[in-house]
Amino acid sequence: MTVAGIPNDHILVDPDRLKTQVAAIFEHLKLPVKDAETVADVLVQADLWGITTHGVSNYIKGIYVPLLLDKTITPNPTIKILSEGSSIALLDGDGGMGHVVSVYAMELAIEKALKTGIGAVSVTNSTHFGAAGVYSHMAAEKNMIGISMTNAAPRVVPLYGKNAMLGTNPLSIAAPTNKVHPFLLDMATSTVSAGKLYVAALNGGMIPEGWATNIEGQPTSDPVEGLESKRLLPLGGTKDLGGHKGYGLGIAVDILSGVLSGIGYGNVLPYRHVGHFFCAVNISKFREIDAFKNMMDEMILELLDTPSSKQGEAVSFPGEIEATTMAERKRNGIPLHNEVIDYLDSLASEMNISVKLTT
Amino acid sequence: MTVAGIPNDHILVDPDRLKTQVAAIFEHLKLPVKDAETVADVLVQADLWGITTHGVSNYIKGIYVPLLLDKTITPNPTIKILSEGSSIALLDGDGGMGHVVSVYAMELAIEKALKTGIGAVSVTNSTHFGAAGVYSHMAAEKNMIGISMTNAAPRVVPLYGKNAMLGTNPLSIAAPTNKVHPFLLDMATSTVSAGKLYVAALNGGMIPEGWATNIEGQPTSDPVEGLESKRLLPLGGTKDLGGHKGYGLGIAVDILSGVLSGIGYGNVLPYRHVGHFFCAVNISKFREIDAFKNMMDEMILELLDTPSSKQGEAVSFPGEIEATTMAERKRNGIPLHNEVIDYLDSLASEMNISVKLTT
Repeated sequence: MTVAGIPNDHILVDPDRLKTQVAAIFEHLKLPVKDAETVADVLVQADLWGITTHGVSNYIKGIYVPLLLDKTITPNPTIKILSEGSSIALLDGDGGMGHVVSVYAMELAIEKALKTGIGAVSVTNSTHFGAAGVYSHMAAEKNMIGISMTNAAPRVVPLYGKNAMLGTNPLSIAAPTNKVHPFLLDMATSTVSAGKLYVAALNGGMIPEGWATNIEGQPTSDPVEGLESKRLLPLGGTKDLGGHKGYGLGIAVDILSGVLSGIGYGNVLPYRHVGHFFCAVNISKFREIDAFKNMMDEMILELLDTPSSKQGEAVSFPGEIEATTMAERKRNGIPLHNEVIDYLDSLASEMNISVKLTT
Repeated sequence: MTVAGIPNDHILVDPDRLKTQVAAIFEHLKLPVKDAETVADVLVQADLWGITTHGVSNYIKGIYVPLLLDKTITPNPTIKILSEGSSIALLDGDGGMGHVVSVYAMELAIEKALKTGIGAVSVTNSTHFGAAGVYSHMAAEKNMIGISMTNAAPRVVPLYGKNAMLGTNPLSIAAPTNKVHPFLLDMATSTVSAGKLYVAALNGGMIPEGWATNIEGQPTSDPVEGLESKRLLPLGGTKDLGGHKGYGLGIAVDILSGVLSGIGYGNVLPYRHVGHFFCAVNISKFREIDAFKNMMDEMILELLDTPSSKQGEAVSFPGEIEATTMAERKRNGIPLHNEVIDYLDSLASEMNISVKLTT
């Protein structure tokens, strides 16, 4: 398939075919069938929304395959409930794929919220869970407000700090609507993710001050220097622009994901292991769900209708780009870089998987 | 009292005397004794932490007294529970002082969290509640993670927006520790609060780009222009520096405070009325509380110990300044501008209240 606006080095791929192939790859890597399907669902969902960094393009090759092969990630974990209350639970992910325990955790939070009004599930001993927004969005689909977050190995400096001490510690919040697309915020608590530095470096461009520092903790506008130092700045960047707020939010995510679960904060996390936190707020226990959703519609439409201050840029709403991208990609397919397609198809060939992306 | 480092136009005031006077003022304004004491406690707590903008200096004169006198705020409200589940409740503040219903709401959230592991309370029909951190901190004092937030009348533009559509929508998160001061994040979701513009205007200085816009929605470095336009920028400021994240966080606070409670999002709030959201996470239902608190201590000490990248600026921790300021002010008193002292003492005289700050 080809469509106008897709770069020359990208090819459009059918989402279902992609899901089938990715699930088969993870099954070959010894995941139970259902778990392999869950991982494929989560990754392709990110690609449908246009969150390419957290879809099939980066982490299958960079994280999941190598760590499953070297046994850092357990393919067939036994998820355990370490403690439980009527509205909470603490789960041990047994070092399995983060996506699997995370879907289970959010389902459990939703189940508890159905009864008591709110459910919160903390996860220890997990691994990279992909895009946080997939889990918060699960709650929104059940007419609940969903919250999801994870900690990660250090890559972000504290305000005024020289060394990376916090992960990019993403936070996602989703809420249901009636007629318009749901609210979906999915943000790293750093100014940007490392992915944006890669893109800038690839294009030979500069980066704005406030994204990254050099090895000495000084702001840099050179993306290569920022990538080499592995030091991003917290949202806000400088003290003047609220860097202490991004820093504080990053710590809050670390507390809820790492300290509450017991796996540890960013700087003491075991190699490639992390903790998560999920929460579902059952709106209909507070008030009539349709009244809530109609008010969400009104709010969103008012925001979208507000005049722009910058030529060529309209006021958007968190989740709008994801929803419109998904609608378009469900029709036309997901554009993947041909190197990604080559990688996945070669992997499939090695594994004797018949489903190929290039037919 | 005078102490080195206090400006000439400030006088040190004993916190207990201040609390007694402020409670007497609110009692005179027809609040029940207990409610008047609650309001005084909350306001003086903000001053003890050094959050001067939300203590006795600004809003007694600017908001509470005039709105109690003109009946916009109900002095003796009947707080009602509109709906309830074992872990949640929706309260109607009956248009009373926000501090009173907020303390009640957080106590209720804590009570529910004691039983089920987490409690969440939404509040509709409330008014300005002072510093968000007072309520999240209540949970931390009970060995819980506390979350508090409120919406507010529009003062912040969406990313690329020309008109203010969101309040500064502050968000606070607190968590308990063992030996070091507790984690306490209390942040507006705008880059800065309007208070910082007042200070800059007073001193005749400029403001950094990313704080405010002029009436056309264009960034301004003139604090007077920013104050006149009543248009602040969301945390992050520009798209490059993550303004869409601050914008998204502001909406999330509006959803949890205004849409969930039913009072409405920023742009449709009734005059001077707002909604709040409170949540308490009972750590000991997840895991052993001392293990949690010891890990908090370790995390904080590691962060404080990390080398600085900027001469003269150490790496701090959210809540550190508040804790050290409180310890110092409990010893030496709270520095108040003499105009504030004059206002409070005149008010007390008019009301035949014998407690004066200048003795």
